[in-house]
Amino acid sequence: MKSLSSIPTLSDLKLTQDAIKSMIHRTPVLTNQFLNGMAGCSIYFKCENFQKIGAFKMRGAASASLRLQGEVKNLGIATHSSGNHAQAVAKAAQFLGIPAYIVMPNNAPKIKVEGTRAYGAEIIFCEPIQMAREKTLAEVVRKTGAHFIHPYDNYDVIAGQATATLELLEDFPQLDIVVAPVGGGGLLSGTSLAAHYVNPEIMVLGAEPKRVDDALRSLRSGHIEQNERTDTIADGLRTTLGPLTLDIIKRHVTDIFTVEEEEIVQAMRLIWERMKIIIEPSCAVPLAAILANKETFRGKQVGVILTGGNVDLGNLPF
Amino acid sequence: MKSLSSIPTLSDLKLTQDAIKSMIHRTPVLTNQFLNGMAGCSIYFKCENFQKIGAFKMRGAASASLRLQGEVKNLGIATHSSGNHAQAVAKAAQFLGIPAYIVMPNNAPKIKVEGTRAYGAEIIFCEPIQMAREKTLAEVVRKTGAHFIHPYDNYDVIAGQATATLELLEDFPQLDIVVAPVGGGGLLSGTSLAAHYVNPEIMVLGAEPKRVDDALRSLRSGHIEQNERTDTIADGLRTTLGPLTLDIIKRHVTDIFTVEEEEIVQAMRLIWERMKIIIEPSCAVPLAAILANKETFRGKQVGVILTGGNVDLGNLPF
Repeated sequence: MKSLSSIPTLSDLKLTQDAIKSMIHRTPVLTNQFLNGMAGCSIYFKCENFQKIGAFKMRGAASASLRLQGEVKNLGIATHSSGNHAQAVAKAAQFLGIPAYIVMPNNAPKIKVEGTRAYGAEIIFCEPIQMAREKTLAEVVRKTGAHFIHPYDNYDVIAGQATATLELLEDFPQLDIVVAPVGGGGLLSGTSLAAHYVNPEIMVLGAEPKRVDDALRSLRSGHIEQNERTDTIADGLRTTLGPLTLDIIKRHVTDIFTVEEEEIVQAMRLIWERMKIIIEPSCAVPLAAILANKETFRGKQVGVILTGGNVDLGNLPF
Repeated sequence: MKSLSSIPTLSDLKLTQDAIKSMIHRTPVLTNQFLNGMAGCSIYFKCENFQKIGAFKMRGAASASLRLQGEVKNLGIATHSSGNHAQAVAKAAQFLGIPAYIVMPNNAPKIKVEGTRAYGAEIIFCEPIQMAREKTLAEVVRKTGAHFIHPYDNYDVIAGQATATLELLEDFPQLDIVVAPVGGGGLLSGTSLAAHYVNPEIMVLGAEPKRVDDALRSLRSGHIEQNERTDTIADGLRTTLGPLTLDIIKRHVTDIFTVEEEEIVQAMRLIWERMKIIIEPSCAVPLAAILANKETFRGKQVGVILTGGNVDLGNLPF
């Protein structure tokens, strides 16, 4: 399986799905009568919060790391992240028996540092600004020869994230709509590719916090837009799109809904209380969008990707 | 299916399992590599937190209400409870299209009152002391003719609770040990009957908070012992055993482990963080017991009943 240098095809996605099987969980799809009644549609929640490392990011890291060949592979993989992507890269490297180098800001929460180190990764700290992260990563890559796995703007990663929707549509082929949250766009672009290939009639929608509505503005303008503020509770969605993810999203995503911070907290609480599962604030954004736009979804069969469950229980919004 | 007047037999349990099928969910069994590594054994968690009304109590209420015949049935069912049993009785009555009367202390949390009322039950308030609850219930039963469903000291209820373990052992017949928390003993007695009938080699253990260790003392003395204090975080386990549940527990339960309050909170947090599921403090008691008694469980295949997921998110212990 070679590294992808253009938009993944259906056959690329299927190869990926097959290749990463032993590195990931096939996650369950849950439904909830109460939430269906409230939303006026039938929602199928793909539970990537139960994925290895607690998030869908495991899929992309598995896909990208498995595509490394020979000597390059043995030199290891690297990234900069203090979130789920860091743990995913570390876990993938552990599985393959190769080194992982993770650049993290020196103010990263101790629990994230320890979590990543527990998978055997080497952590390299840097100042908590974007430039320092990129510079430190470049140094690490130069010194070690490790391969940089971008958290989202990478076709191998996108193909990995797409497999969540392939599985969802294998279980529930009748879906009319699939909704995914959008930050850097790796998940949303992969979701839209998978849905498009399986059944082009399926509408794919993005959902993001109003405070960081760069994806909606980028979809409208056709260029990568920036965010003036990044203080949303949905901490996984603060990043902007990349050129590769924007390109795919422009082709296959119908629209992007934006939601208020209170709507995110309410939707998160609903899922915790009614479904008894733990999800990150970012995953609540699609349900918040559904509840705020009921006409769009009325009577439909709707898939929602629940992206992850790594939350700090000592710091909850309720 | 008639009401049971002696210890349920295997055939009673199987009849019950079949009869209540349409009123309950067949709940999933989850495993977790990290927790297995920590505990030194393989744990199979039966997720009754995903059960209808969010707790295993639905099984007992379904079993007892389905056993009512003709005229008696149409007069409805009644109980006193401010917890999961109240919602279970209300939901069972709603399913059968009969009235439900629930006596609740007038200081019961609003969310529990509303939750029970949402299933169509009539709520009757009383002073928040045991005598007032029993007196009010007796009045309701006299006036309405409704049938009182005891929360645990009732063979029909015990047969219902036993079905969780029948399902668990259908999925994982190789279990060496099954651990259930013990409050009034409905679940533990049912669990021990089911395990005994399926395979008498399976050891059944109870687990309770040290602060309310009445079940352990009752098992040792042979009589129903009281608790001097009831201020455990595991609010589902504050009650004492009944004559019927003690009798079965004496026959089929090998031992009861007691755990400290901090151990319960730690085990609860581990399940939330590692398994990404929401459980009540009461359900964390078996895992706390396993982690505090590793020699007993080392290398074994251990079933654990996770009893429910109804927690107040605004009042968490971490």
